[in-house]
Amino acid sequence: MRNPQLNAHGELNHLLSIDGLPRDVITHILDTASSFLEVSDRDVKKVPLLRGKSVFNVFFENSTRTRTTFEIAAKRLSADVINLDVARSSTAKGETLLDTVDNLVAMHADMFVVRHAASGAPYLIAEHLHRTGRDDVHVVNAGDGRHAHPTQGLLDMYTIRHYKQDFANLTVAIVGDILHSRVARSDIHALTTLGAAEVRAVGPQTLLPTDVERMGVRVCHDLREGVRDCDVIIMLRLQNERMNGALLPSAREYFNCYGLTPEVLALARPDAIVMHPGPMNRGVEIDSDVADGPQAVILSQVSFGIAVRMAVMSILAGN
Amino acid sequence: MRNPQLNAHGELNHLLSIDGLPRDVITHILDTASSFLEVSDRDVKKVPLLRGKSVFNVFFENSTRTRTTFEIAAKRLSADVINLDVARSSTAKGETLLDTVDNLVAMHADMFVVRHAASGAPYLIAEHLHRTGRDDVHVVNAGDGRHAHPTQGLLDMYTIRHYKQDFANLTVAIVGDILHSRVARSDIHALTTLGAAEVRAVGPQTLLPTDVERMGVRVCHDLREGVRDCDVIIMLRLQNERMNGALLPSAREYFNCYGLTPEVLALARPDAIVMHPGPMNRGVEIDSDVADGPQAVILSQVSFGIAVRMAVMSILAGN
Amino acid sequence: MRNPQLNAHGELNHLLSIDGLPRDVITHILDTASSFLEVSDRDVKKVPLLRGKSVFNVFFENSTRTRTTFEIAAKRLSADVINLDVARSSTAKGETLLDTVDNLVAMHADMFVVRHAASGAPYLIAEHLHRTGRDDVHVVNAGDGRHAHPTQGLLDMYTIRHYKQDFANLTVAIVGDILHSRVARSDIHALTTLGAAEVRAVGPQTLLPTDVERMGVRVCHDLREGVRDCDVIIMLRLQNERMNGALLPSAREYFNCYGLTPEVLALARPDAIVMHPGPMNRGVEIDSDVADGPQAVILSQVSFGIAVRMAVMSILAGN
Repeated sequence: MRNPQLNAHGELNHLLSIDGLPRDVITHILDTASSFLEVSDRDVKKVPLLRGKSVFNVFFENSTRTRTTFEIAAKRLSADVINLDVARSSTAKGETLLDTVDNLVAMHADMFVVRHAASGAPYLIAEHLHRTGRDDVHVVNAGDGRHAHPTQGLLDMYTIRHYKQDFANLTVAIVGDILHSRVARSDIHALTTLGAAEVRAVGPQTLLPTDVERMGVRVCHDLREGVRDCDVIIMLRLQNERMNGALLPSAREYFNCYGLTPEVLALARPDAIVMHPGPMNRGVEIDSDVADGPQAVILSQVSFGIAVRMAVMSILAGN
Repeated sequence: MRNPQLNAHGELNHLLSIDGLPRDVITHILDTASSFLEVSDRDVKKVPLLRGKSVFNVFFENSTRTRTTFEIAAKRLSADVINLDVARSSTAKGETLLDTVDNLVAMHADMFVVRHAASGAPYLIAEHLHRTGRDDVHVVNAGDGRHAHPTQGLLDMYTIRHYKQDFANLTVAIVGDILHSRVARSDIHALTTLGAAEVRAVGPQTLLPTDVERMGVRVCHDLREGVRDCDVIIMLRLQNERMNGALLPSAREYFNCYGLTPEVLALARPDAIVMHPGPMNRGVEIDSDVADGPQAVILSQVSFGIAVRMAVMSILAGN
Repeated sequence: MRNPQLNAHGELNHLLSIDGLPRDVITHILDTASSFLEVSDRDVKKVPLLRGKSVFNVFFENSTRTRTTFEIAAKRLSADVINLDVARSSTAKGETLLDTVDNLVAMHADMFVVRHAASGAPYLIAEHLHRTGRDDVHVVNAGDGRHAHPTQGLLDMYTIRHYKQDFANLTVAIVGDILHSRVARSDIHALTTLGAAEVRAVGPQTLLPTDVERMGVRVCHDLREGVRDCDVIIMLRLQNERMNGALLPSAREYFNCYGLTPEVLALARPDAIVMHPGPMNRGVEIDSDVADGPQAVILSQVSFGIAVRMAVMSILAGN
């Protein structure tokens, strides 16, 4: 079966999910990101790689943060960026997703950055482009439903590699609402592909997918057990809508059981790093002393995220 | 009486409506668009014609699709584009339309792309600019009420000329909700000016303007009669709000009477082209087999639309 | 105590408020603005001073007008501008203001243009940047609560200096809702610093701050007395929400007492100028004959405003 993300030469043609990306493709993205990290530190933070290219941020679901990171990355590559707030647009007028895509392709789009509440929407678009002979237009998944958020997964890998160099001997704990998190799925796939020694899924039964063990992770319902001797702790955001209701008794109770405090962090390796995809709920999933402490690398993740997105876009545009 | 769209040398100074545009001005726009078509196919899709110019998309009515086409066109001409979502802005604070315009002119605007629910709003702005001695600031009508949508009309003419070369012997059917369509009015004016042999207005009595025959068109209430031996069929979008209520029994009934199916299309010339301004309601005004079939040129319209808008903007800025 | 707006060399590092700005810093901004005024008249309205810099318009409160003026100014300086409609974003998801700021700094922001409903929010951000060692990132206050709107104050000073050259012998009346106006506070500080002979606060008791006399102004409750022999009259916008309710009987009554009509204006110096920060409520605080009359310099304020914002941004980026 054709890998929908790669072209005939095995090069990246779309970034849809880390699931299915060969290890060398991931490594190539991370290596390319290294070279872009320096661009954002320049006085003139711009390279002309995507000059005259039209990048469309097609957001069927509002996410200012994610849209901003892609907009900055594209502008630093000198692309023309057009933001489409599709929630308020033609789809509301009854147009199908693929008609919207065809229209933008007819406007000579070079790249779509797609955010959609439905899992698989970016795949559908990539498949449609292939079927209509437009493999020269590229799709980047900026988050689809509960399924994937591959640039977040890649920047997490970049961060881990930056601080830990090698994945081979690492123990990584992913803590929190894994069930609803596209970040967790992307991270698990990436860590497995890159050969992390052990990945732990830590959270209450109600917030873990039933099949999570099949993804090759060790399940821990106890936070202390989950972070013990870890090299990397990835805290997940607890969505507000989960905090009170069927899945959880309350935010306070959650913090007592699964909030990362300095005391709990002390159980991990002394040089363990703490990551979070943001935005943080201080006092819910993470204590402020940890978030602002020396082991947190949360803001480095954000910086690396721009470089990773520049890398993905420039690789897609170059292939 | 002064033609508000032309300057003292008879050149285009504003694009407000196709009604009143001399044939040679229309032809000049279409010829200029030809030269821009190639820009969107380049590796670097940019020309420096509007570099350092400030183009304001002033949308008093939300239309992401139309705004996007003008934004792309302006960016490919290297203009600085500022999007004003005026619906959420100062007019809401009680400022008059002309005070808003005066303010933007004081910010050294070069061009306004205006969308307004009120027919005539772009005229009002152009008149005001003339009265205040600012004929160097240009207005492009991006759709005003039921009145006009001249760039859509021009791109439709570009499309017809592209596929049929000459207008002289053409029979063109415009099908659907002509009463509420600014596109239909613009198309009828353009086709009449360019000398199409016959223009037919096809639709139920309730969706045709009472004075439509005075515009020089032949009225047909029967779709089969309307498309018979046509060279060009322009399908109009049926607004959702018309579908059930006073004007029409239902969307399904409408499709049965006025939806373009392969069977009906077979009554037109074998080389007839099918056009639609988008977004389409598949299964309401047009069957998917037609929309995706070999005679549909709907996506070409979109591509030509960018070139036509680049042509209009560059002509205005050059005069 | 450290002046949070100045760096160790006494140069402008943030623009937070005119209160606390030394006279020579204000004069330097106005002089720099003079040199930018000509840029907006050029055929190519662009200078490369901020090329490759990332300017974030961070608007926690919607204000299309103000956002637009900063966006134009930044684009004419060749910056990359990213608009963040934070009201709809992560803060809504429970993220703290300073976490949002830290994230944007991690994306290598160079400048924040901040609008916030809370007085002091831009100070809080500037302090945080200082505390975290990021004095290289600059903050421009684009309006915080009732507190300050320094670029409006500066453009008002630019306008007065343009028409009156010297502040030493000027009598300036500020008329209207001084209590709720950040513009009035900024203007009073600037006029005092620049040495205006007399500043009058004119309005009903209910719309004047209780401590306004401590700011060095003369209070007048009578409009005729307030504008008599003035050189400059600054009319303030009456917010719609004040017009009926506890503070004022009605808009009509307000106009009768405090609306600037030609008759009242005749009491000022014959060469007096009339200013307004916009958007105007014609027939509420100002009569149309005055707004459109020869003494109004309201649109010049808008033009000067772009030059002043370009000056502020280029000074901050240069220091």
